[in-house]
Amino acid sequence: MTSIEMIAAARARLQGHIRRTPLLSSPFFDEMAGRRVFVKAECLQHTGSFKFRGGWSALSGLGPQVRSRGVIAFSSGNHAQGVALAAKRHDVPSVIIMPADAPRLKIENTRAFGADVVLYDREKEDRDAIGARLSEERDLTLIKPFDDPLVIAGQGTTGLEIAAQADEEGIRAAEVLVPCGGGGLSAGIALALEAHAPHFTLRTCEPEHFDDTARSLRSGTTTRNAAISGSICDAILTPEPGKLTFPILKRLAAAGIAVTDEEALRAMALAFKRLKIVVEPGGAVALAAALFHGKALESDTVIAVASGGNVDTAVFSMALERFG
Amino acid sequence: MTSIEMIAAARARLQGHIRRTPLLSSPFFDEMAGRRVFVKAECLQHTGSFKFRGGWSALSGLGPQVRSRGVIAFSSGNHAQGVALAAKRHDVPSVIIMPADAPRLKIENTRAFGADVVLYDREKEDRDAIGARLSEERDLTLIKPFDDPLVIAGQGTTGLEIAAQADEEGIRAAEVLVPCGGGGLSAGIALALEAHAPHFTLRTCEPEHFDDTARSLRSGTTTRNAAISGSICDAILTPEPGKLTFPILKRLAAAGIAVTDEEALRAMALAFKRLKIVVEPGGAVALAAALFHGKALESDTVIAVASGGNVDTAVFSMALERFG
Repeated sequence: MTSIEMIAAARARLQGHIRRTPLLSSPFFDEMAGRRVFVKAECLQHTGSFKFRGGWSALSGLGPQVRSRGVIAFSSGNHAQGVALAAKRHDVPSVIIMPADAPRLKIENTRAFGADVVLYDREKEDRDAIGARLSEERDLTLIKPFDDPLVIAGQGTTGLEIAAQADEEGIRAAEVLVPCGGGGLSAGIALALEAHAPHFTLRTCEPEHFDDTARSLRSGTTTRNAAISGSICDAILTPEPGKLTFPILKRLAAAGIAVTDEEALRAMALAFKRLKIVVEPGGAVALAAALFHGKALESDTVIAVASGGNVDTAVFSMALERFG
Repeated sequence: MTSIEMIAAARARLQGHIRRTPLLSSPFFDEMAGRRVFVKAECLQHTGSFKFRGGWSALSGLGPQVRSRGVIAFSSGNHAQGVALAAKRHDVPSVIIMPADAPRLKIENTRAFGADVVLYDREKEDRDAIGARLSEERDLTLIKPFDDPLVIAGQGTTGLEIAAQADEEGIRAAEVLVPCGGGGLSAGIALALEAHAPHFTLRTCEPEHFDDTARSLRSGTTTRNAAISGSICDAILTPEPGKLTFPILKRLAAAGIAVTDEEALRAMALAFKRLKIVVEPGGAVALAAALFHGKALESDTVIAVASGGNVDTAVFSMALERFG
């Protein structure tokens, strides 16, 4: 179980290896939203998403002998890159199993970070069987994308930075909006805020029809999504909340928010125009919630995490063309 | 004449009002360039460019009575926005005289920051006459875009940050590449580096055919450009080096570099893909020099300033389509 001590320890291991990403803002957003809006730009993290924090935390938390044999991960892209680069910088091999229909940029980058990328067909092949065979053959350690205490601790360092940066900005209370797939980032940030910014409220943000966490929080019990694909927000389409992450969110998160794909694309175009950052669809759902779901919010200050920026050119151009 | 003491004083006045923009990097850039490449992301500054530093420095350096009557500026866009927002936050009026063919986003934003925007026809109207009439009528103080010691001091705070961030990264020597129009940013950074990072070399970067500073540095005397328009790098098309800035650059800058419009667009697409930042054409010339003009460089580490990100959607999409 991840604790605030584990998050502090992760921060110490990550020191000098990750970026303290900036907290951005725009007077145009404040006016649109009718409240102060800050954006934690994790798209500017190494590998273009917060996942490098969890990857580094997990890799650096392994014993040297275990680590030296290498690691394996399943991911459609951001966790893939995070683990691949963390492994490369620890000088150990990595095998990443990715769906063949993952965004091209994410597959290319994962390869470029030195990973042995194994593609599989989502419809026809059994990802877990491929992973089990490979990890047994090579004695690799599996780095799960969210249900791993060290990974949650790594993502939680984002929350430590948010608490410190909010303090620097003089923010005493805020709603913190976090894009949520399996819930590793949300759970980590929730734990960090509980300890260091107790007046802050965390809300998970998800794509419409893939709001398993929001529905699970409402019902109090883990609820699955009806589909596993069908939103442009590829980074955060998980079937259900994590086993380790959901109990944390159940205890600490307020009601979740679901946004449409169109709202995510609109938020991407606005982040381009107003903040000069590149955000991918799944990474833009929290900003979309801040700008377009004001009625679901209560405080006069919101901090939206822009969790990743690994978007293919065609999708980004489409967002600009439709909403720029 | 701007001194390092004036830059330090500007930093004190800017404290809490500007962003310390991040120093970004990508292993892909290091590999492309065959050296370490860092990018000082001033496109993430308030108003989307470094010009807010100079605007704030100038406004905050005026006496309260003079300031309260308001300010006036000429600009195709980034200085316009910098002065307009700085004036708004000082609660004083601003008049900004802009060419009617400036990028739409820059005109809109300047208006949205509360400035009274006066458009003129570059071919038919006399900008200076319009400005003289307005400033006399309203007793406004002119804030020049670069030939003003307080403006140069404000831009120089970028150099203080570069020196500090380079030190944090363990960089002992580097070439610092700076997009150069009138030379305010280059001169300010050069003075800051002279005092705080004396092993660093500054090089100005300009668009091909508009490399008045590079040619002036070669000849040792101020040399004009043949044309005043004709490059996509709108932010840095000035007829000749500044009267205050050139002597500083003549003393401190190494040979300048000129890049093509195509290289600037290519650098924009790469900054999108690898750094997740939005850079405008004129803001991308230093990154273009770092990536595509390696033969003109000598050190194993370069720091390229990405000076602005105020680009219209159509131009950005075109860069992605051609080079993404």
